[in-house]
Amino acid sequence: MKTTAGRFFEDYRVGEIIPHAIPRTVGTGERALYHALYPARHALHSADSFAQSCGLPTSPLDDLVAFHVVFGKSVPDISLNAVANLGYAEARFHRPVWPNDTLTARSTVIGVKQNSNGKTGVVWVHTEGFNQHGDLVLDFKRWVMLRKGNLDAPAPEAVLPELTTVVPAADLKIPHGLDFSRYDTGLAGSTHTAADYEIGEKIDHVDGVTIEEAEHMLATRLWQNTAKVHFDATNRDDGRRLIYGGHVISMARALSYNGLANAQMIVAINGGAHANPCFAGDTVRAWSEVLDIAPTTAPNVAAIRLRLVATTGDSGAFPLRGEDGKYRSDVLLDLDYWALMPA
Amino acid sequence: MKTTAGRFFEDYRVGEIIPHAIPRTVGTGERALYHALYPARHALHSADSFAQSCGLPTSPLDDLVAFHVVFGKSVPDISLNAVANLGYAEARFHRPVWPNDTLTARSTVIGVKQNSNGKTGVVWVHTEGFNQHGDLVLDFKRWVMLRKGNLDAPAPEAVLPELTTVVPAADLKIPHGLDFSRYDTGLAGSTHTAADYEIGEKIDHVDGVTIEEAEHMLATRLWQNTAKVHFDATNRDDGRRLIYGGHVISMARALSYNGLANAQMIVAINGGAHANPCFAGDTVRAWSEVLDIAPTTAPNVAAIRLRLVATTGDSGAFPLRGEDGKYRSDVLLDLDYWALMPA
Amino acid sequence: MKTTAGRFFEDYRVGEIIPHAIPRTVGTGERALYHALYPARHALHSADSFAQSCGLPTSPLDDLVAFHVVFGKSVPDISLNAVANLGYAEARFHRPVWPNDTLTARSTVIGVKQNSNGKTGVVWVHTEGFNQHGDLVLDFKRWVMLRKGNLDAPAPEAVLPELTTVVPAADLKIPHGLDFSRYDTGLAGSTHTAADYEIGEKIDHVDGVTIEEAEHMLATRLWQNTAKVHFDATNRDDGRRLIYGGHVISMARALSYNGLANAQMIVAINGGAHANPCFAGDTVRAWSEVLDIAPTTAPNVAAIRLRLVATTGDSGAFPLRGEDGKYRSDVLLDLDYWALMPA
Repeated sequence: MKTTAGRFFEDYRVGEIIPHAIPRTVGTGERALYHALYPARHALHSADSFAQSCGLPTSPLDDLVAFHVVFGKSVPDISLNAVANLGYAEARFHRPVWPNDTLTARSTVIGVKQNSNGKTGVVWVHTEGFNQHGDLVLDFKRWVMLRKGNLDAPAPEAVLPELTTVVPAADLKIPHGLDFSRYDTGLAGSTHTAADYEIGEKIDHVDGVTIEEAEHMLATRLWQNTAKVHFDATNRDDGRRLIYGGHVISMARALSYNGLANAQMIVAINGGAHANPCFAGDTVRAWSEVLDIAPTTAPNVAAIRLRLVATTGDSGAFPLRGEDGKYRSDVLLDLDYWALMPA
Repeated sequence: MKTTAGRFFEDYRVGEIIPHAIPRTVGTGERALYHALYPARHALHSADSFAQSCGLPTSPLDDLVAFHVVFGKSVPDISLNAVANLGYAEARFHRPVWPNDTLTARSTVIGVKQNSNGKTGVVWVHTEGFNQHGDLVLDFKRWVMLRKGNLDAPAPEAVLPELTTVVPAADLKIPHGLDFSRYDTGLAGSTHTAADYEIGEKIDHVDGVTIEEAEHMLATRLWQNTAKVHFDATNRDDGRRLIYGGHVISMARALSYNGLANAQMIVAINGGAHANPCFAGDTVRAWSEVLDIAPTTAPNVAAIRLRLVATTGDSGAFPLRGEDGKYRSDVLLDLDYWALMPA
Repeated sequence: MKTTAGRFFEDYRVGEIIPHAIPRTVGTGERALYHALYPARHALHSADSFAQSCGLPTSPLDDLVAFHVVFGKSVPDISLNAVANLGYAEARFHRPVWPNDTLTARSTVIGVKQNSNGKTGVVWVHTEGFNQHGDLVLDFKRWVMLRKGNLDAPAPEAVLPELTTVVPAADLKIPHGLDFSRYDTGLAGSTHTAADYEIGEKIDHVDGVTIEEAEHMLATRLWQNTAKVHFDATNRDDGRRLIYGGHVISMARALSYNGLANAQMIVAINGGAHANPCFAGDTVRAWSEVLDIAPTTAPNVAAIRLRLVATTGDSGAFPLRGEDGKYRSDVLLDLDYWALMPA
């Protein structure tokens, strides 16, 4: 067979390093598309001049571009045939991706556990993305449920990795040179800096965007994510395509500008749940909750930890979980991340 | 409140300068998207070599990119909650926008007038766009009808700005170095130069483009225009989104290539009316009328003043107004602009 | 008339050279869009670093970008009013198109033959695309059936060009410097090099992509192809737009990555048939057949000749022709091309 059917549960060994194919050069073309696909307005990713006033050499690509590209590279080797994407954790952004950087990725298997049904198992991987200098750009851990290809394959010894639920503020990587001492809140679009937010505060991001099939497919292809459920209408009786969860993340993050205009750079994703699938025709809204605020060592730069919730319902009602403790049916995404903001 | 609800009528004071947020770097990625979104074929914006043969250092971004970006920046401060965009005038293009330029914008309030109903009022602003060198790129005046947030707020003294209906030909800004002495009509795609057009002549641009929801949303986001009516299908009972008027302008202008291939650069927009709303599924056609032709001081460069009409009807019938003097229901746009063309 | 109605059969003379309008600068913006529009994953067009490891100065634009742009330039002069695009042959890619190259095109009439009905005729042209240095980038021959505008125009003397059905392997142009000696199959995504393929072998590319109206219009406009059938829903009773055949070529070629990941560069298209029209809503799949394998003079570089078939049916059943010898109704495209692959 010349084509790749994808790996099954029994094909993973703890400690194995899986290099992912297809390095990718990203640049200002990808930046323009990001602005066309999402209502992205954070100034640092919009204008070279603003990024330079913050101590950076030029405007980096949106942090989520790095996430999507690295994640997309891992799909054929990790999750092409996943029964379920169960979660991710400890995503750390080590340095910005600059226009014309070339990204490569690899994953290390850090855990396996066969399920009691004998037909499926969970695989944990540590995925790392590098630029053309070999510098680590991004890493994260994720776990997926996979079918066994050979039901007679013996169950491997269970290895469960230790995962932290929150990247400690002290471990966040601040981009080299970042300095918010001369930060222009007028140009950024909001006077609200970290000092103005309180832990527990909830923010309704107000606006909604109705998603079209063409848009999410353009986005998902742009990240070279080839999972067929996103593209092939014949996979479902209703002809709809399941929207890549990262599309919802980017949409919600962009919508969060209205209320969090100064949360400029994502430096960590502590975890996330895609509570319900998203389909074309859904109108996505978002709300955020401030989970923590911490100082950093960079001039006038604070870290703010946020819960970002995407919903097809009324974002002003801050929907999350029902009385049964389960996610409500109108919740798409529950993301926990750290961003950098003027103190 | 961390989110912006937008300003109301009583929040504007004549003379106030409102700096707009989110500077924006535009480049060849935005150019590529412009060519994907519109059937844009004017040679000067298509090829560096053609622009250089016209005395320019390289191919500038389409003039309407500058317009859309600067207009988009003004939306959150001026028209987020507008009851109606009533008009614009005196748009002058002062210098081209080059790839990698960063645009900023500000508006000055130049007029206010409360309506007799006491519930709404009209605000006039003068909006200016600048590049990263602080040079004026574009300015225009526009007026919008806004609700009062506080009905008890006293009516301000009415100030009505003087607006010219047509930018005089002598005031048009010719890009530095522009020279049509060696203009290649073969490469441009038409032998018809200014000398071949007559005032009063009407041109049917023949072709039609049916608009999809995904396309106009990609375009409108690209300009960071966040007016919710363009994106949120839940705003209307029929689930359709109101298409940004600028999308119709760019579509009609691009269609006008067929008949006006040598009308290379827009240097002024004298005024425009969005006669009827445009929705996905509409097939947009266009026709033009030559309103004036004038010499300029640049070598072999003439200015041509054009009426550009976009219609969902038969462009060959040159639809405009009915017997009652009102725009026909199949007219989307009536735009009056100056372009530069070989003499 | 200022607009172009297009040429009719009697307007072509054998030997006439027709320069095409609108030079076009293409760059990394077009590359980003290509990756958004198609599931393109061949490493050499994805990453500068990979292209450099293959002896090239940087990553060229996808070879089909050059084809689409040059083809698009020829449409207004050759096929705007074609009754049928009958075929193409001898497409040779002479050198890569690099970011920021500017392409121009011209066609030479090489054959004419009036049909026996006296109302239509066939015109053969040789179309050439050049970069800004005047170097030939691409050439191909194609033939179209055109209506006569004046039925009384005398039939021209029939001239039928000699066309080869296959570009001989020895005539293929290998990009300057191309060297697959240090080719990294891990980064490319497949260990299968030319030595692993056998003539007659068929490969199911497995994946399917459902096409949306917005996507094919974005693509077709990007190539400045203005044939109205692709854009104007009022042309057909069912409101659908006929999809540009080149969109199907690019989609199928991108899908062929899964099974032909190392077929990096297209160097010739021997011929192609668009067996059935493609419409939005169709789910496109693809399969390939190895037609030939040949050595080249470049280090470790082999040429592989492939049949690429796009289908709306089951690609795993390798549909092509029915018992009557005609293309099956579920076949969209039957393309014959040469690509370069590590030996």
